[in-house]
Amino acid sequence: MPGISQRGIQIPASPIRKLTPFADSAKAKGTKVYHLNIGQPDLPTPAKALEALRRIDRTTLEYSPSNGIKSLRDKLTGYYSKFGINVSESQIIITSGGSEALLLTFMTCLNPGDEIIMTEPGYANYISFAMTAGVTIKTVTSKIENGFALPSVEDFKKAISPRTKAILICNPNNPTGYLYSEEELFRLRDIVKEHDLFLISDEVYREFRYTDEPYLSALCLPGIEENVVVVDSVSKRYSECGIRVGMIVSHNASFMSSVMKFCQARLSPPLLGQIVAEASIEGTEDYSKECYEEYLGRRDFFIDGLNKIPGVYSPMPKGAFYTVASLPVEDAEDFCKWCLSEFSYKDADTPEGFSGETVMMAPAAGFYSTPGLGKNQVRMAYVLKKEDLARALIVISKALEEYNRK
Amino acid sequence: MPGISQRGIQIPASPIRKLTPFADSAKAKGTKVYHLNIGQPDLPTPAKALEALRRIDRTTLEYSPSNGIKSLRDKLTGYYSKFGINVSESQIIITSGGSEALLLTFMTCLNPGDEIIMTEPGYANYISFAMTAGVTIKTVTSKIENGFALPSVEDFKKAISPRTKAILICNPNNPTGYLYSEEELFRLRDIVKEHDLFLISDEVYREFRYTDEPYLSALCLPGIEENVVVVDSVSKRYSECGIRVGMIVSHNASFMSSVMKFCQARLSPPLLGQIVAEASIEGTEDYSKECYEEYLGRRDFFIDGLNKIPGVYSPMPKGAFYTVASLPVEDAEDFCKWCLSEFSYKDADTPEGFSGETVMMAPAAGFYSTPGLGKNQVRMAYVLKKEDLARALIVISKALEEYNRK
Repeated sequence: MPGISQRGIQIPASPIRKLTPFADSAKAKGTKVYHLNIGQPDLPTPAKALEALRRIDRTTLEYSPSNGIKSLRDKLTGYYSKFGINVSESQIIITSGGSEALLLTFMTCLNPGDEIIMTEPGYANYISFAMTAGVTIKTVTSKIENGFALPSVEDFKKAISPRTKAILICNPNNPTGYLYSEEELFRLRDIVKEHDLFLISDEVYREFRYTDEPYLSALCLPGIEENVVVVDSVSKRYSECGIRVGMIVSHNASFMSSVMKFCQARLSPPLLGQIVAEASIEGTEDYSKECYEEYLGRRDFFIDGLNKIPGVYSPMPKGAFYTVASLPVEDAEDFCKWCLSEFSYKDADTPEGFSGETVMMAPAAGFYSTPGLGKNQVRMAYVLKKEDLARALIVISKALEEYNRK
Repeated sequence: MPGISQRGIQIPASPIRKLTPFADSAKAKGTKVYHLNIGQPDLPTPAKALEALRRIDRTTLEYSPSNGIKSLRDKLTGYYSKFGINVSESQIIITSGGSEALLLTFMTCLNPGDEIIMTEPGYANYISFAMTAGVTIKTVTSKIENGFALPSVEDFKKAISPRTKAILICNPNNPTGYLYSEEELFRLRDIVKEHDLFLISDEVYREFRYTDEPYLSALCLPGIEENVVVVDSVSKRYSECGIRVGMIVSHNASFMSSVMKFCQARLSPPLLGQIVAEASIEGTEDYSKECYEEYLGRRDFFIDGLNKIPGVYSPMPKGAFYTVASLPVEDAEDFCKWCLSEFSYKDADTPEGFSGETVMMAPAAGFYSTPGLGKNQVRMAYVLKKEDLARALIVISKALEEYNRK
């Protein structure tokens, strides 16, 4: 039997799904599991987009262009302009979700063995895509004590080596919910400019910013126009993760024409998803406002509730729909497992038909590269309706009590 | 401005699209261009599948499972059993088209620097995926003189080195249309077994075999059950290339669990395409029969017509919907360009509204790795209706006459 490749062996299991077998057995026992572990929005897809899906009237579902349908790219230029981002349709390439956008960006910017700097805790799949591309991730640590703000310039400079080719940020941030300030982005700009690096900015949570401060995309940073690549996706903003439509946006023509060669090899992004995405962009202002207000309400309610549980601390995230919180336990992974395998809570409000309730959270250690960091932290996504978040808060509080009584 | 990666620079431009700018200017001049260059089936998608698309009744278009929707994988086990292939749903992973299936298979089977052996002429994107994965392609040459049959065992053995990890075949073959015999497949089996290699078999043209000989999938080769990976796709068989639904099928559990890690990183394959694919599999026997007969009729008509043109030779392909033919020219790429940029044919049957007609073909040199091979050959796909194929044959014949008169 031939052996599989090292990269096949080394790619880490996804931290948000690692405990799925425990959740499955909890469900098999009749326990209601509140999924705080995964960023799958529960809100509906825009009615207008679903309507476009039903109206598809084609006889052959053909390949679309390798860079995506032109009318979708045209609509996106209008969308971006609302955020002060001036790009033409030729500066946008449609991909199979933000995932493919990330992988192709890594493939195009970096040679095998080159290095990319990202902040930790960070989106775990960045590591997987980096391993797939044969590039090395170096991390600079952001700290819960200051709300996961951008690490210092000195920290970045310490991480830079002759093989460093890019800095990767996620803004607003998954998993921390942190939103970089203008001042922080300019600090990054200066580093990128000084060392002539790519700045890869994952901006898929752009809509979800709970602040009045003006928005600044990395694409608008002056003086590094050719260095910036924005990775984007319609998944989160229109609750349509399943359609797999993402995008790469850059002013750098030689970068874009190289990405196109990878895109031609894989022929085309998903046709049906592109039709849905196109219908989602215009005429959905009310939808977006409602989603925004829903997430804002949930954030306030959930983070407030978390901080009321003795020993729990969560910074107030200014964006996205995640938080990384510290728990009064030594080993959050052990606690998360225990919640699914040994714990179950029941009171008069437990939903009918269930023997009890528990929560599934993602142990945050999986979002750090530095061993030992984040051991007492978890990542939680507030993608449940408020009533469920309320029950999840009660469950967490009761679980911590019982776990720490052992 | 930071430089892009070597792989970004080295990935070859797609040979089937290379001449697109010439085709565009021919069209701009009012010339009707018959596209023989690209394997985009013109037949309709099954009505049942389009109906399923219109009936999608979901409020949120969520992520599907990373390995694909279970009911789709269940239906595929039934589909495969009709071809004597016994697999369970856990031995199938759904991907974003056959393209992603190929890339993830390369990533999982081979370390960077490892080697894969394929026959040339071969599907050009194999080279791109290999470069993306950092693996080296070695080719053994199949020859037009014997209809592009499997090269000899000696040729394969000469290509094997200590770094060889896999043999890759496409059966029925793109670009040649060749269908491997049982005897040839057993020869491959013996090589694979002796050297403990992976056998990666791209079988996306399985439905299109114009022979009564019994079908043998690589998955059915005895004694190498753990070595075989089949790459598959619904694109061609149901004329639904745009939905991006492919699959990886293997009995090798450690290979499959490693592929799953890459799949979890990219979250999920396209949801909507999977719904369409699932509806395409059952109750479409009549549809498949009609398509089959259409392609069979076209093949007989087109290949016969090609061989009647003085100096043109095409073997009779037993599968797929391509052929590689030799032309009475020295440089087929120059001829193909000339057809688009300088030539145009007009007679009483030229369709109304056009100033003339021409053809777009793919120069076959782009399907060979060995420099100089295939210079007088072109790949053509018979994915046009018979009337158009008839006109294309006339155009090719007239073009050759005029080109060689120069």
